[in-house]
Amino acid sequence: MVAVAILAAGRGTRMKSHLPKVLHSLAGRSLVERVLESLKSISPTRQMVIVGYQAQEVKSALKEKPIPLEFVEQTEQLGTGHAIQQLIPHLEGFTGDLLVLNGDVPLLRPETLQHLLEVHQKHQNSATILTAHLPNAQGYGRVFCNGQNIIKEIVEDRDCTDAQRQNRRINAGVYCFRWSELMKVLPHLQANNDQQEYYLTDAVNQLEPVMAVDVEDYQEMLGINDRQQLAAAYEILQKRVKAKWMNAGVTLVDPHSITIDDTVEIQSDVIIEPQTHLRGNTTIKTGCRIGPGSLIENSHIDENVTVLYSVINNSIIHAETQIGPYTHFRGDVEIGSGCRIGNFVEMKKTKLGDRTNVAHLSYLGDATLGEKVNIGAGTITANYDGINKHPTKIGDRSKTGANSVLVAPLTIGSDVFIAAGSAVTENVPDDCLVIGRARQVVKPGWQLKRVEEQG
Amino acid sequence: MVAVAILAAGRGTRMKSHLPKVLHSLAGRSLVERVLESLKSISPTRQMVIVGYQAQEVKSALKEKPIPLEFVEQTEQLGTGHAIQQLIPHLEGFTGDLLVLNGDVPLLRPETLQHLLEVHQKHQNSATILTAHLPNAQGYGRVFCNGQNIIKEIVEDRDCTDAQRQNRRINAGVYCFRWSELMKVLPHLQANNDQQEYYLTDAVNQLEPVMAVDVEDYQEMLGINDRQQLAAAYEILQKRVKAKWMNAGVTLVDPHSITIDDTVEIQSDVIIEPQTHLRGNTTIKTGCRIGPGSLIENSHIDENVTVLYSVINNSIIHAETQIGPYTHFRGDVEIGSGCRIGNFVEMKKTKLGDRTNVAHLSYLGDATLGEKVNIGAGTITANYDGINKHPTKIGDRSKTGANSVLVAPLTIGSDVFIAAGSAVTENVPDDCLVIGRARQVVKPGWQLKRVEEQG
Amino acid sequence: MVAVAILAAGRGTRMKSHLPKVLHSLAGRSLVERVLESLKSISPTRQMVIVGYQAQEVKSALKEKPIPLEFVEQTEQLGTGHAIQQLIPHLEGFTGDLLVLNGDVPLLRPETLQHLLEVHQKHQNSATILTAHLPNAQGYGRVFCNGQNIIKEIVEDRDCTDAQRQNRRINAGVYCFRWSELMKVLPHLQANNDQQEYYLTDAVNQLEPVMAVDVEDYQEMLGINDRQQLAAAYEILQKRVKAKWMNAGVTLVDPHSITIDDTVEIQSDVIIEPQTHLRGNTTIKTGCRIGPGSLIENSHIDENVTVLYSVINNSIIHAETQIGPYTHFRGDVEIGSGCRIGNFVEMKKTKLGDRTNVAHLSYLGDATLGEKVNIGAGTITANYDGINKHPTKIGDRSKTGANSVLVAPLTIGSDVFIAAGSAVTENVPDDCLVIGRARQVVKPGWQLKRVEEQG
Repeated sequence: MVAVAILAAGRGTRMKSHLPKVLHSLAGRSLVERVLESLKSISPTRQMVIVGYQAQEVKSALKEKPIPLEFVEQTEQLGTGHAIQQLIPHLEGFTGDLLVLNGDVPLLRPETLQHLLEVHQKHQNSATILTAHLPNAQGYGRVFCNGQNIIKEIVEDRDCTDAQRQNRRINAGVYCFRWSELMKVLPHLQANNDQQEYYLTDAVNQLEPVMAVDVEDYQEMLGINDRQQLAAAYEILQKRVKAKWMNAGVTLVDPHSITIDDTVEIQSDVIIEPQTHLRGNTTIKTGCRIGPGSLIENSHIDENVTVLYSVINNSIIHAETQIGPYTHFRGDVEIGSGCRIGNFVEMKKTKLGDRTNVAHLSYLGDATLGEKVNIGAGTITANYDGINKHPTKIGDRSKTGANSVLVAPLTIGSDVFIAAGSAVTENVPDDCLVIGRARQVVKPGWQLKRVEEQG
Repeated sequence: MVAVAILAAGRGTRMKSHLPKVLHSLAGRSLVERVLESLKSISPTRQMVIVGYQAQEVKSALKEKPIPLEFVEQTEQLGTGHAIQQLIPHLEGFTGDLLVLNGDVPLLRPETLQHLLEVHQKHQNSATILTAHLPNAQGYGRVFCNGQNIIKEIVEDRDCTDAQRQNRRINAGVYCFRWSELMKVLPHLQANNDQQEYYLTDAVNQLEPVMAVDVEDYQEMLGINDRQQLAAAYEILQKRVKAKWMNAGVTLVDPHSITIDDTVEIQSDVIIEPQTHLRGNTTIKTGCRIGPGSLIENSHIDENVTVLYSVINNSIIHAETQIGPYTHFRGDVEIGSGCRIGNFVEMKKTKLGDRTNVAHLSYLGDATLGEKVNIGAGTITANYDGINKHPTKIGDRSKTGANSVLVAPLTIGSDVFIAAGSAVTENVPDDCLVIGRARQVVKPGWQLKRVEEQG
Repeated sequence: MVAVAILAAGRGTRMKSHLPKVLHSLAGRSLVERVLESLKSISPTRQMVIVGYQAQEVKSALKEKPIPLEFVEQTEQLGTGHAIQQLIPHLEGFTGDLLVLNGDVPLLRPETLQHLLEVHQKHQNSATILTAHLPNAQGYGRVFCNGQNIIKEIVEDRDCTDAQRQNRRINAGVYCFRWSELMKVLPHLQANNDQQEYYLTDAVNQLEPVMAVDVEDYQEMLGINDRQQLAAAYEILQKRVKAKWMNAGVTLVDPHSITIDDTVEIQSDVIIEPQTHLRGNTTIKTGCRIGPGSLIENSHIDENVTVLYSVINNSIIHAETQIGPYTHFRGDVEIGSGCRIGNFVEMKKTKLGDRTNVAHLSYLGDATLGEKVNIGAGTITANYDGINKHPTKIGDRSKTGANSVLVAPLTIGSDVFIAAGSAVTENVPDDCLVIGRARQVVKPGWQLKRVEEQG
């Protein structure tokens, strides 16, 4: 039985933000959401978030989480020990383990926490803490162990001797306590230090046995205190994600310039070109070439699709379709297979059948098109009368001429041909030619006259 | 009393350019302009630019500078000592200090020069020179000092013993002289060296006391001799600027891919997405999200504006407005608050009231729109008759239908509705419906006939 | 007389691809094509590609190469020695040298292979092999030489003593053999090892004298086994190409974000802005400014052209022309000098005379425009009737109004003015004004009525 406490009460002054630190976004999810996700392999029975600074904002932001969260208020910020003391009334009678995490340490992997907990439970430790070996340990508390990883002492950086400072094994700030053991010392912590704060490490130092477990990659324990660290965490996360996909058979051309959220799925033999960004719940199937210069969010891209310099949101693209450059799908778009969607084309709430082309300078909204339709350059669905939106339907094999306007609500049958420059305001049955434009009038000598007028 | 001399006579052969080296641009300003700007904390009484190669181009480029500059010609390029000798007739009777800078060293901070001058004046040195500790000092003259930073010797790299080469404290090429002292040796310099040049360091070596002042960050003294060094300087400058804004509470997503001119101002809690470039006199207020893929130049962006994949020049965007993707403001554009400007929209010399939308495929030029106007997709202001440009005015709450053309000069009142596909050529009073399109004609059996024709 | 054998039979499992490893693309050309190109300085009399896994795909991909290739099948993959044994029937009576290369080592420079061959032939070695000094030699066979670079021994990494492992001179896998000498040992190779493979190094160890030649830059010998190595090779190649152009006088703003194929030619005093990609047979002449955010492929750009956020394919742009942002040339486009092509403009198979402008929201296909033509915003050539494409011609100085449609086939003379919103379906002689739009009808009180209707 495991309870988790996430420290999320701090202000994070160095972020220079009106937003509580733990709500800052890292690749699409807030820091504290990422900490919550790192728990997925250990299935805690209780998840407690200790809130303080802008408590209401933190609660609201986490409200829709599927897992039930308990919020514990720490009205004053008197140190990590003080924060955990706030749990005492909530954990009365609790007989399991308490895992303590920081809400601003977003890169811990579920495997790491699972391993920490397994070691803790297997050895029946009073406490087990995560440690890391840093290239530069300056500022961190050093952890001194015997050969069996039993901690003899944790010494704060400022209290270290020069010899002690050579030890680069540091306290990563992730603790697992047997709650019954912790309760023997937690209520009695003292704030006998310069900061006048109650330190959780003081409790650790009074317990035994306390064991150290090394994190595999020290970068997991990076905490976010300012925007430079936020950028650094993003870079670590991106390297992790991109290495994963390259190892899975995805070609990234100039990987440094690409960003991929860790929620994206990509099949092998996809080629991602520079300056491409894949976000949210996006999947890309084999054979696609995406980019350069594209942003795809919450979309599903089938096999062998090409996307060039385009923005695609909340859409589905079926196989063998070509998109871009400069296409924009605003959402709720579904494109059939073998389609060609070209430059300066926008769609919203629109569905296209297979082998339908919308190649240039069009806006389609609230539209349903059949198969093998050809939408001429500059065709626009006038779906908005200034108050409401209306649908447009176009049947198979119909063609709209250049610069035609389709005034919705409108149903156009199959095999219809709309002449260039027409405004179509009434429904059209199958097999019709539609013309809605004025006849051409030519006035000769115009250039001459004009010059005279100005003369 | 301080006179400044900037060495800007060299050709810069390794730049492989028709442009004099000091006129090459680094993040929006030429190298020599940047050197001039580094003087802002010391208020020199005289600023002399020593020109030689393509002297006329250098003079022209600097002509509009607010501070009066004196140009001194060095017709032959016979070394730094020779260059400073050219000042002698210009500084007759001058009793102050002379600060000597290179026109191709653009990263010196004003604080550095101020500190150099303060040390020089406080210690009443004959000369004070800027030194740096380089990771790799190869090629640089080494500076040897006593414990009080009094220079004993400057030895050129080629003349160093192996032991001397271990000294990585180098001459940064920035000198401060008491002019009266320098005048005792400057006229008598010899060109007794392989290059047959007159070296300013020879003068330094004859003066005393000469003091060394270390630059805080050795990267400040990077000189530009080729395009790789130009790129390196740009990177240093960018790191400096981006660290500053991250520390001030700006989130940069993938900072490596972003560029920000050092003339830009950004408030906290702005998020800058990848591949975004902020240039010139641009200000971005709090709450904005800018990018990816955007270029903003000389523009003012108010609170909570979003800009996605757009190019914005010389424009003002008021609060809460959404821009992009693929919007282009060519200049003199002012957008009210709460507006939505969408894809494939271009504006030039255009002003929009609050909550007005121009969502798709429009060009507005020389236009003034009221509040809550809705511009339909494909609406275009025909502001150019091939000879002159004419204005368009649209009153509050008016709506233009898709693919309508507004032929300027044109005034459209408030609460006007223009039907889709209309060409509007005459002014429209308030509260009118305007239709300017042909009636739709439908010819059945078209598909059939067509097949017959081809058969 | 030199024969070349390229090992291209392996599967490359770690690529996780349906494509044979040597066909993966690196900056526009496959790995094996790049290996073939590295031979250009040695003019081999025979080029043999040893194929195995997906032999047919490899053959097909290389079929159109100008140099005649011989394909030798290695049906089982039993090691490098076994691969070379397959050549025996093909090289009967051959008296020259055999150069052996790996099909997945794409960064070798022609100079390196030429030097290897020259050393081999000058010293009349039995074999000469390429060696490199690696920062991290782990996993590579170590090469031990006497002072004259005569190899005493090659020891596989796994067989090295700790002392031997300190030697970081490794076997780069590029061999030059006197074929007659190799034939003394090649047929008798044994597969006495864990992998049960026939190693070519076993043959090397039996020959003498065998000489080692160091590669100048160890990065040349990087082999591609997975997508991370493919990305690393791309980065090495890019650094090489970009350093070359910077040294030649090209300014790259933020070079990390730019990619340039090694087939591109750029003159001095070109400025390339961030996130720009130059590909294929592209040439850029002096004075151009390209980017940010542009992709130019197989195109020729004359002097002083600017390109901003655009995609240009297979096109020619003459001097002093401005392109973009958001211009798309799909191919077969030729733009005269002094033109201005603006945002949201697409062209295909189109030719423009000098000083012609297409500034906004246009599609031109199969069109030929004269000089000083002005194409109004939203003008579209309706060049496709749903079955065939037709041409449009426009004479000098003609102007099309905004949102006009030109229905092809169509010939418009010189000095013609087409009114905004016109559909032009018939040819127009010189000096004419063309109007093809309905007259504007205004219905007052519309807003009022509308409210009533809804009330």
